[in-house]
Amino acid sequence: MVNMSTDSLLTDMTSTPVMERIFSATEQVQCMLRFEAALSSALEDCGLTPAGSSAPLQALLSVDFLTPERRDYLTASARDSGNLAIPFIKLLTDEVRRSSELAARYVHMGATSQDVLDTALVLQLKEAVENIQRGIEQLKSACVSFTIEYAATIMPGRTWLQQGPPVTLGLKAAGWAAALSRHQTRIAQMSSRALLLQFGGAVGTLASLGTDGLRVSAALARHLDLSEALLPWHAHRDNIAEAATALGLLTGTLGKIARDISLLMQTEVAEVFEPSGEGRGGSSTMPHKRNPVAAASILAAAIRAPGLVATMLTAMPQEHERGLGGWQAEWETLPAIFRLTAGALALCNETVTGLEVHPEAMRANIAATHGLTLAEAVGSALTPDVGKQRAHQLVEEASREALQKCVPLQDILAANSSITQYLSAEKIAVLLDPRNYLGSTTKFIERSLGQATERED
Amino acid sequence: MVNMSTDSLLTDMTSTPVMERIFSATEQVQCMLRFEAALSSALEDCGLTPAGSSAPLQALLSVDFLTPERRDYLTASARDSGNLAIPFIKLLTDEVRRSSELAARYVHMGATSQDVLDTALVLQLKEAVENIQRGIEQLKSACVSFTIEYAATIMPGRTWLQQGPPVTLGLKAAGWAAALSRHQTRIAQMSSRALLLQFGGAVGTLASLGTDGLRVSAALARHLDLSEALLPWHAHRDNIAEAATALGLLTGTLGKIARDISLLMQTEVAEVFEPSGEGRGGSSTMPHKRNPVAAASILAAAIRAPGLVATMLTAMPQEHERGLGGWQAEWETLPAIFRLTAGALALCNETVTGLEVHPEAMRANIAATHGLTLAEAVGSALTPDVGKQRAHQLVEEASREALQKCVPLQDILAANSSITQYLSAEKIAVLLDPRNYLGSTTKFIERSLGQATERED
Amino acid sequence: MVNMSTDSLLTDMTSTPVMERIFSATEQVQCMLRFEAALSSALEDCGLTPAGSSAPLQALLSVDFLTPERRDYLTASARDSGNLAIPFIKLLTDEVRRSSELAARYVHMGATSQDVLDTALVLQLKEAVENIQRGIEQLKSACVSFTIEYAATIMPGRTWLQQGPPVTLGLKAAGWAAALSRHQTRIAQMSSRALLLQFGGAVGTLASLGTDGLRVSAALARHLDLSEALLPWHAHRDNIAEAATALGLLTGTLGKIARDISLLMQTEVAEVFEPSGEGRGGSSTMPHKRNPVAAASILAAAIRAPGLVATMLTAMPQEHERGLGGWQAEWETLPAIFRLTAGALALCNETVTGLEVHPEAMRANIAATHGLTLAEAVGSALTPDVGKQRAHQLVEEASREALQKCVPLQDILAANSSITQYLSAEKIAVLLDPRNYLGSTTKFIERSLGQATERED
Amino acid sequence: MVNMSTDSLLTDMTSTPVMERIFSATEQVQCMLRFEAALSSALEDCGLTPAGSSAPLQALLSVDFLTPERRDYLTASARDSGNLAIPFIKLLTDEVRRSSELAARYVHMGATSQDVLDTALVLQLKEAVENIQRGIEQLKSACVSFTIEYAATIMPGRTWLQQGPPVTLGLKAAGWAAALSRHQTRIAQMSSRALLLQFGGAVGTLASLGTDGLRVSAALARHLDLSEALLPWHAHRDNIAEAATALGLLTGTLGKIARDISLLMQTEVAEVFEPSGEGRGGSSTMPHKRNPVAAASILAAAIRAPGLVATMLTAMPQEHERGLGGWQAEWETLPAIFRLTAGALALCNETVTGLEVHPEAMRANIAATHGLTLAEAVGSALTPDVGKQRAHQLVEEASREALQKCVPLQDILAANSSITQYLSAEKIAVLLDPRNYLGSTTKFIERSLGQATERED
Repeated sequence: MVNMSTDSLLTDMTSTPVMERIFSATEQVQCMLRFEAALSSALEDCGLTPAGSSAPLQALLSVDFLTPERRDYLTASARDSGNLAIPFIKLLTDEVRRSSELAARYVHMGATSQDVLDTALVLQLKEAVENIQRGIEQLKSACVSFTIEYAATIMPGRTWLQQGPPVTLGLKAAGWAAALSRHQTRIAQMSSRALLLQFGGAVGTLASLGTDGLRVSAALARHLDLSEALLPWHAHRDNIAEAATALGLLTGTLGKIARDISLLMQTEVAEVFEPSGEGRGGSSTMPHKRNPVAAASILAAAIRAPGLVATMLTAMPQEHERGLGGWQAEWETLPAIFRLTAGALALCNETVTGLEVHPEAMRANIAATHGLTLAEAVGSALTPDVGKQRAHQLVEEASREALQKCVPLQDILAANSSITQYLSAEKIAVLLDPRNYLGSTTKFIERSLGQATERED
Repeated sequence: MVNMSTDSLLTDMTSTPVMERIFSATEQVQCMLRFEAALSSALEDCGLTPAGSSAPLQALLSVDFLTPERRDYLTASARDSGNLAIPFIKLLTDEVRRSSELAARYVHMGATSQDVLDTALVLQLKEAVENIQRGIEQLKSACVSFTIEYAATIMPGRTWLQQGPPVTLGLKAAGWAAALSRHQTRIAQMSSRALLLQFGGAVGTLASLGTDGLRVSAALARHLDLSEALLPWHAHRDNIAEAATALGLLTGTLGKIARDISLLMQTEVAEVFEPSGEGRGGSSTMPHKRNPVAAASILAAAIRAPGLVATMLTAMPQEHERGLGGWQAEWETLPAIFRLTAGALALCNETVTGLEVHPEAMRANIAATHGLTLAEAVGSALTPDVGKQRAHQLVEEASREALQKCVPLQDILAANSSITQYLSAEKIAVLLDPRNYLGSTTKFIERSLGQATERED
Repeated sequence: MVNMSTDSLLTDMTSTPVMERIFSATEQVQCMLRFEAALSSALEDCGLTPAGSSAPLQALLSVDFLTPERRDYLTASARDSGNLAIPFIKLLTDEVRRSSELAARYVHMGATSQDVLDTALVLQLKEAVENIQRGIEQLKSACVSFTIEYAATIMPGRTWLQQGPPVTLGLKAAGWAAALSRHQTRIAQMSSRALLLQFGGAVGTLASLGTDGLRVSAALARHLDLSEALLPWHAHRDNIAEAATALGLLTGTLGKIARDISLLMQTEVAEVFEPSGEGRGGSSTMPHKRNPVAAASILAAAIRAPGLVATMLTAMPQEHERGLGGWQAEWETLPAIFRLTAGALALCNETVTGLEVHPEAMRANIAATHGLTLAEAVGSALTPDVGKQRAHQLVEEASREALQKCVPLQDILAANSSITQYLSAEKIAVLLDPRNYLGSTTKFIERSLGQATERED
Repeated sequence: MVNMSTDSLLTDMTSTPVMERIFSATEQVQCMLRFEAALSSALEDCGLTPAGSSAPLQALLSVDFLTPERRDYLTASARDSGNLAIPFIKLLTDEVRRSSELAARYVHMGATSQDVLDTALVLQLKEAVENIQRGIEQLKSACVSFTIEYAATIMPGRTWLQQGPPVTLGLKAAGWAAALSRHQTRIAQMSSRALLLQFGGAVGTLASLGTDGLRVSAALARHLDLSEALLPWHAHRDNIAEAATALGLLTGTLGKIARDISLLMQTEVAEVFEPSGEGRGGSSTMPHKRNPVAAASILAAAIRAPGLVATMLTAMPQEHERGLGGWQAEWETLPAIFRLTAGALALCNETVTGLEVHPEAMRANIAATHGLTLAEAVGSALTPDVGKQRAHQLVEEASREALQKCVPLQDILAANSSITQYLSAEKIAVLLDPRNYLGSTTKFIERSLGQATERED
């Protein structure tokens, strides 16, 4: 019977097919098999086992090892033995024995359960990290294109959910791209620490290999194309936990992008929309709605990741040479973080790539506040003459009057001699034109694009 | 193609078959179907739909609705539409239409996606909570039996991981039972709040049912055997989040029990062991070990649950009438909490039921400290004569001497005239007998058992 | 030197003066003193200590015990001894000795450090819980008044941040009130479990009191006006952790209220505003803004509480009779949760009490969508004739046309014979009037108010 | 009145004096003042303000700005205005005005509240990070010395809390040192991202500075000796959150060290002890105990940090140009993480530096298992002849017999012809000598020390 226990109808929403494959039972077992095959080769290379004793394991790499029967056996036995490796080694040894009694004698020699389980995880992580990095690169490229396209598209800046002076849509996207660029660096630095062979034997001394431990370790690392650690890291989980924190940080940025988009999609704002399409974002009861469905899933990921990251950190103080409870707590948690992040990343890629932009709504929203969001420009212009606080006060009073009377700020200002003694009506009009109050927007965009492009080389 | 994406070989370790079934895709869809069938009956009861229009939905309840094709369709469409309900209603309406065009017109009438999804969740939770309560009752009973059996089995009390005065194993188990009893009450109180119908229509006004909303709601609740809420709770998730916190608290207690057992199983302590058995707790490299495998999984659950509970709390501030991101973050999180808790509860039940007790090791461990853990008894006996601080000081000095010289404390004390002027050697011997220093142990056990038994009635 | 180490300029924003007092060093020490004084009385009551030996401790209750010197001593010594109780007992014994050498002999007799620390915490919690319950009652009352006042004030319902059919502001507030009512019940139930005496001596057996333990315990509980536990709960923290979860749940609801308000305050929405006032919500650079400052602090509390609650749950699996690390992790965490919650509750009270409502903005926002948010009403009216899916489709097409042409939905519908064959233009106009599409709003409000009032009795 | 609200008697235990100073109100205000003074200089440098207008602010740097009156004003006003910067700028402008009306006009020109608050935080973090790095370096050095001293001190290796084959105490400490080395790299990489100037004005465009924004920004960064960001990071918190994750990871490692030590200090193990000393680790009721008091505080920090890190990640999706709630959630959280980590680091330094080692207890604990923990050596020796599974089985049976009969494994093995046909009694004795079963221990230590030393250069 196929184990359909944790089946879910939401995996397309909260993960990706690639990530599901990487962290599937099949792939996990395959990576465990790769470890054992590589170990058998390393032992043979080092002359510790007879010539040819690795062949049967190598042969198994091209077979679908995880039959339904074995799946059931592993699931049931894992519970009793406390981990997957013990029943796996038993199945593997039995299978090897069918082709060679001799080879069967050396299966798993020198290794402990955690060696195969951790290294299999690292092999899975290696592919998962590459997949995430590709996803970030795509999203960053989309943000860069978007930045260029909308570099001069003026929209309200917003702070504390209130309109402030204008920004451009390109500046907003440049901020997204810059953050993604940092995540690429962060994940690369993490990878150089985390993607390491685990090989220490029972208590991290490789004692059962006598004086040959490091030679076997080097050969094993070579076969698996992994770097070696300085010493086994069975109970030191900082690198593995860092993989979690790096993805948690990325998910936070994806959540920020999604939050921005969902707020801009609000009925009353309507400046930017997720791409539409057949069956996308419809509501069963409100046919006219354009629900931010991708944003909802991305935000959900950003809400879920922190708790999972906390679990990985909580699990770190593992006992002695190999711990109890902490290690086990990682098993389903780290894959969950990768799944969630990959799912959010894929949705974010689709979203940013197909974003609908409504510049006219942006202009209308700026205009709706009667020029109040440009008040700062007038304040700044007044500062040299009257000082910051007095300027602030004058503009604040004028703004209140404009609000109360529902009249353009420009009219109020032009009628106030305390202001016109320093600023002419024409000057006021220029000051209140959003195009004239973008400050260093273009320079920030250029600086940011320069760096993003550089990085791509 | 069957979706095997989130398949895992660990579900037997981190969940139970029953809980996997309750939160399976099949059961979720069945509960959604139950909602829609009950709604069609309620509408018909209230005369809002033609007689007989609910029959086709009722008929579907005994059919296996979630075919592989529909599973694939739901998974793919959920991603685009942002939730499962929209494609489900489409499939359902199509299916109903095959038997009755008329009935198809009224499918899902008055309801919104969240009504069916939340109510289906509540139906799943109802069964899940009953299962958890049964599991607690069993574990409590096992703890009560254990308490009675070992009420007088003396073992070292331990604080800060250091031996202190003696306790009995029964007292320890009585503490477990008392905590479990509180969890039963807590979960029952939570259930009365959380297991409620969700029915509000698009924005919680049941507007599309005109003035008939509450009548339909009452009928619907009756059909599903659920209580009604005062008003729809689409964006108020305190009850749902409380289900998470109640289970999180329970998992903490299970973790405490597992931690105690794992520490008592240490090679150097060896007082209590998890039940052994074929393939249980063996180590692939250390054949003689008795690994606390159940304890490891339970502790892992106790490490994982808090982060998941935090997610449920973080998700609570949901926007307006129905939120964005927060609700979605709950979907996989709350089932994960139930799975983990049920898995830990089942393992804890097996463990406590089959616990091996080594009273001789307990006695030996007490004896190994030369009587130092009974020092307090001597201090207490001296207090009336010399005061607490002086008594403390005298005993501390004697204890240090006993430690340094590796001599029984009794000998040191009996040789110290500052002490013997108040306590005879015989009195000292009596004071240092662990059986005489159990204080209110028996009374605490009796009081606790009285309450536990009462509750069972 | 006064320890000003963790001083912060943000305590008014993230806490309240009352809660700061309750969890101040002074109050903690006073509560520890109350425990020791009550213990001395209980011992004397039970005839275990000479008559009059409790008098010196009772006398200290009216003295400011925590002098700056003692504060410094406690802070420094707590680090070395691992808790506050050891140096506190030393200071206390020294002080008692000044008035009575005899009384000094019995200070803390029978108790362990954790007895005094946990019970002092419970005494602090008792006052803190009462304060929180009063705050909830006030906020609920404000919500109830608000519900009554705005029961018929129509505003857009919003789901997924998109406008849907109308609700009333009163319905929204009724949802807040109902949640607060549940929190009152929840906290009351938690209190009956958590506010218990801790008294067990070194390992929870009260061994140093011989056979008198339970008599002393009963007397001690009576003196402190606390209930007794069935047995000491040194390493069973479910009740204490439940205090954290109960407040975490409350903070989630406060966050939901704050999120609603902050979204309604958006420049483009402008339907509801936090109370204004001197220096309130101003921006240093944008003089016209009305920042949701209270909402920001409340949301910050709702973001912070879950992590703190997770800490309390993580700390639960405490070792043996008294744990190591877990207990210590609670010390600053639980007070932090109470501070944050009280601060958010106070701000929420001020906010809801002074909320500015702009019904004209609500009407304008509904109107801005050309009637699309009432489309569901038309769909429902069509359903009996054409079925749900066809009705949905007809309305969806009309809505898209209205959106594209920027024309009222009413006009599009009235021009479509597929629709007018079932609904007259007059009927369509009635259907699209928001006042006619409130469904069970009034009944939900009444039901909810009935329950809220009942509870107040 | 001095605000003593959040005063605590535990700061010496959960923080350090240096970290308390860095994150004190006084230091925060001083860093805000440094920002404003540097800004005034930058503006003057760039010719945007009259010569001499920065002098009054520079003069304030050497004054104790935060008087008790101002402290009270700031605390009260922060609540109303939503942040500290607004009332601070007001106080500052008033103060500057006393010496120069002209200078007062330009205070804070071009900046927004978040610019000064974030940059002040970065200035505090800079010092805090240096302090943490120094602490790690000291601890790593202590671990390196310890590794060298105890490189050959044999003790039981332990996995799943069960004794396994032997390790050396030096190997354990080498693992600690290697992890600390990685944390140094990690924190350095984080610092290069996080310790950046924040300067963007109201919405991150520096609009009020016209075209001079970047020139002022460069000058400001120079004055503060900070690097510039590519563009303002008001709502992109990945770098700040990474500071939290980096410390969270470190705290996990400290927790691992503390857990090891606390387990080794158990009464029944007694292999390693925290340094003792006056009043250190004593128990009020159990005079003979040696409580792991430093370990308890370090473990408490490791339990608390993950929840705080999760808060920082949860806070990341901040709205638009400057967010609401998320930013505010960081304010007390990030300092709390630094305090906790520094406190744990200091305690860990004291602990490792003064660790008491009992090699005789280590030998006795190994001996207590009758040689069973060396069983693997025999299994490995048998493997070439009989295969891994058969060897495992033979040794497992012998081990069970030794356990049951309480006889040395050596005797059982030597009496079993299935074994002696491959291994002589002499060979068995050699195999069961722990000194001969350390495998690559020495090489791992050397490799690890080589890297640690390299890094120190």
